Amino acid sequence: MTQTLHPSRVSETQRRVEDDLVDRVVSSFDNCDNPRLKQIMQSLTVHLHNFIRDVRLTEEEWNYAIDFLTKVGHITDDKRQEFVLLSDTLGASMQTIAVNNEAYKDATEATVFGPFFVDDAPHVELGGDISFGAKGQPAWIEGTVTDTDGNPVPNARIEVWECDEDGFYDVQYGDDRTSARAHLYTNERGEYRFWGLTPVPYPIPHDGPVGQMLAAVGRSPVRAAHLHFMVTAENLRTLVTHIFVEDDPQLEIGDSVFGVKDSLIKRFEEQPVGTPTPNGRDLSDQAWTKTRFDIVLAPAHPLSEEN
Amino acid sequence: MTQTLHPSRVSETQRRVEDDLVDRVVSSFDNCDNPRLKQIMQSLTVHLHNFIRDVRLTEEEWNYAIDFLTKVGHITDDKRQEFVLLSDTLGASMQTIAVNNEAYKDATEATVFGPFFVDDAPHVELGGDISFGAKGQPAWIEGTVTDTDGNPVPNARIEVWECDEDGFYDVQYGDDRTSARAHLYTNERGEYRFWGLTPVPYPIPHDGPVGQMLAAVGRSPVRAAHLHFMVTAENLRTLVTHIFVEDDPQLEIGDSVFGVKDSLIKRFEEQPVGTPTPNGRDLSDQAWTKTRFDIVLAPAHPLSEEN
Ligand SMILES: [Fe+2]
Ligand SMILES: [Fe+2]
Repeated sequence: MTQTLHPSRVSETQRRVEDDLVDRVVSSFDNCDNPRLKQIMQSLTVHLHNFIRDVRLTEEEWNYAIDFLTKVGHITDDKRQEFVLLSDTLGASMQTIAVNNEAYKDATEATVFGPFFVDDAPHVELGGDISFGAKGQPAWIEGTVTDTDGNPVPNARIEVWECDEDGFYDVQYGDDRTSARAHLYTNERGEYRFWGLTPVPYPIPHDGPVGQMLAAVGRSPVRAAHLHFMVTAENLRTLVTHIFVEDDPQLEIGDSVFGVKDSLIKRFEEQPVGTPTPNGRDLSDQAWTKTRFDIVLAPAHPLSEEN
Repeated sequence: MTQTLHPSRVSETQRRVEDDLVDRVVSSFDNCDNPRLKQIMQSLTVHLHNFIRDVRLTEEEWNYAIDFLTKVGHITDDKRQEFVLLSDTLGASMQTIAVNNEAYKDATEATVFGPFFVDDAPHVELGGDISFGAKGQPAWIEGTVTDTDGNPVPNARIEVWECDEDGFYDVQYGDDRTSARAHLYTNERGEYRFWGLTPVPYPIPHDGPVGQMLAAVGRSPVRAAHLHFMVTAENLRTLVTHIFVEDDPQLEIGDSVFGVKDSLIKRFEEQPVGTPTPNGRDLSDQAWTKTRFDIVLAPAHPLSEEN
């Protein structure tokens, strides 16, 4: 882990001045009657001050930071959430996911939710097509939902959503289209299957201050190709995750929001034109892909609840 | 220093998952060709992630934080800088001042700049009145400007500004008034003197998200009574500071932006009605105060410049 603290540079007197200030700010929260809020504000204080002290932040840099945050605030509205992009690109969103979704046996790993989920996506039957006219290469996705003891989970609700081949989600077009998103339910054997699109990489919105930051540090705004899943079932931990596409070159370059986990990278097998489809769908002259994603859900309350 | 880290709560596997993520985000900045920006972003990453991990931030709390920052952004405009208020109330502004103004011999200590400085304040002669009609108890302020070897500094430019007895700066009235601010110059013996107002406590703007935060944690938005100084002179380090008022009860409660330093607390001596004034000003039936503030400026480049 990179450490940028250079304690030797600072005199003992100066160190004491800076420590004293941290102590004063920390104790200003002593009277907070919400213990959790108090803990958060005191920890935030310590870490924020440690950052300023470690890098010996200049007054000019502090001004720049205030100005940057102001721009992030001003571009944010109902449709555009630049603070989420900032959190995502600093890995803070993914770290929050990590902290709240500890590994449990072989339960499927979680990843970032992203900004493009919509609550009332249409229902499709098993084997149905979620693309609703979105352009892209058809992909057959199938798998099972089980618990960590291997029992099938019938009637699990699966929400899936993805971008089209141009890298845009339906909601980014600004018309009222609903496409490349749906929900479906597992059958009594815990199985699911549907037609979607082979995922493609797309950039996060990068025409604002966060995009400028990425450009300044030489980072790509592009997300590795992925298909979003949210799986809910009674008494089991809700899973928010993606599957990624093996051989996507962006996996090598790096996902701009650090969402990739090895266990979530899946082979989308290329099927030449004319290959018969699993459910008899006629794709005429189109090639297609297929993949398998077996989902394992952790219990909702894995630990005894004696706290 | 309060430590909120509870490493024992996290399994070794989980710790590794979280560490790996921090490492990935840190190394995403490896290609930044601006070494200072790279250092800042990598240090920010480590401290931000340490905060999230230490408090085990929940997804609900993360959402709350995003929403809070959005509100801070939306209330900020040309006249209102809520990010500065946030930085001030977390002591981050004062820590930046501390980092950039290390103690040098007996040089006068610095404190926060605040949001109410105006560039083109009027000039007054020595002994002049900076109040320009602002209401409040007259105060006579005098002193010297010297360097750390005790030499007087002639022609040092002193900017002074303060609120009126209602706790408002001129710029907060939204008309075009200019009052309770001016600049003046030391004479050939490094002396200065002027009439101002005895400082009174005032609250920082607290009708926005930062005010809500202060209320939620049980903190006062009030700043200890103070008079702002900015002193500039050739080859000497610019000093931004305040003087505070001995016996101000807010000193006990705590200054909302952590600006107080013991060396900056001055006695404003009460002068009963009728006490003759130092320069013959006729205050008729008003009581007044007087204080002394001797200013010592550090050299602009105290260390050898061999870096
Ligand atoms: Fe996405
Ligand atoms: Fe002030």
